[in-house]
Amino acid sequence: MTNNPELPSAAALNRDELLDHWLGHRRLTRRTIECFPEEKLFHFTPAPPMRSFGDLMKEVIGMVEPVLEGFAAGKWTLELTDLSLVDNKAGLLEAFDRSTAMMKGGWPTIPDLRFREVESVYGMPLQANVHVFLYLLDNEVHHRAQGFVYLRLLEIEPPAFYQR
Amino acid sequence: MTNNPELPSAAALNRDELLDHWLGHRRLTRRTIECFPEEKLFHFTPAPPMRSFGDLMKEVIGMVEPVLEGFAAGKWTLELTDLSLVDNKAGLLEAFDRSTAMMKGGWPTIPDLRFREVESVYGMPLQANVHVFLYLLDNEVHHRAQGFVYLRLLEIEPPAFYQR
Repeated sequence: MTNNPELPSAAALNRDELLDHWLGHRRLTRRTIECFPEEKLFHFTPAPPMRSFGDLMKEVIGMVEPVLEGFAAGKWTLELTDLSLVDNKAGLLEAFDRSTAMMKGGWPTIPDLRFREVESVYGMPLQANVHVFLYLLDNEVHHRAQGFVYLRLLEIEPPAFYQR
Repeated sequence: MTNNPELPSAAALNRDELLDHWLGHRRLTRRTIECFPEEKLFHFTPAPPMRSFGDLMKEVIGMVEPVLEGFAAGKWTLELTDLSLVDNKAGLLEAFDRSTAMMKGGWPTIPDLRFREVESVYGMPLQANVHVFLYLLDNEVHHRAQGFVYLRLLEIEPPAFYQR
């Protein structure tokens, strides 16, 4: 077990694992949404100008479609999915599930080379497209974690972070 | 550009990118710590039983060494680095920088095959070791995001999430 200097950048993660990793986070995020009382989901803003957890989740959900489209076909747009009519828990969970299914269904259609192609996306530094997906994932972890604090402020126990 | 069915799990991310991705998050986390007023870092607990941001960061910092040791050499331990004496901002930033340097310095010593070896770690499901590193990263994103809410509750603007 010695390091191989010929492979300074050996593969660390493959595409199927990346999807599975995201799907695990999705399950945790879904459980987090479920923890919120209906009347607090869109109407609890303890730390302005931060949005309600429901609104944070609408951003998270709304990014899935444009990122998938950019990823799969190079059509990068900043236009999030319109979720302006979603204003309750059932509707949010439905939109959430729809976006999960969309990514899961679209994933196999993404050509392998798209993960490693380098494109200028959203004004971010030039890097392999996989990093846009990592941004999507990190953004979800970030906003979900903020929901954990909201839940604690409401004296509700959030789901276990380690469970996926 | 058609998908290659021979490569259902093509490489999505290589090891150097993974380190760079983590280092980008580290820079953001460091800026977040810097945002906290000295007297709030270890003494602001708005959402009990959640810990202060300083204590959350001690967990994040304390995981680096054992994860690196497990990753590099298969010696997995649940014992976090002892940071019990750290109780102010300068000390926390110093411990933070030390852990960043430790991972950065240790990374090249991790044999390539360690990323893909499958081991039983911390009672987590059996998966390639790289997932332990992803857990370390996700845990940092998670707790840092909670610090963003703490800062907003203190009416302090957190750093920009997209800046790394």
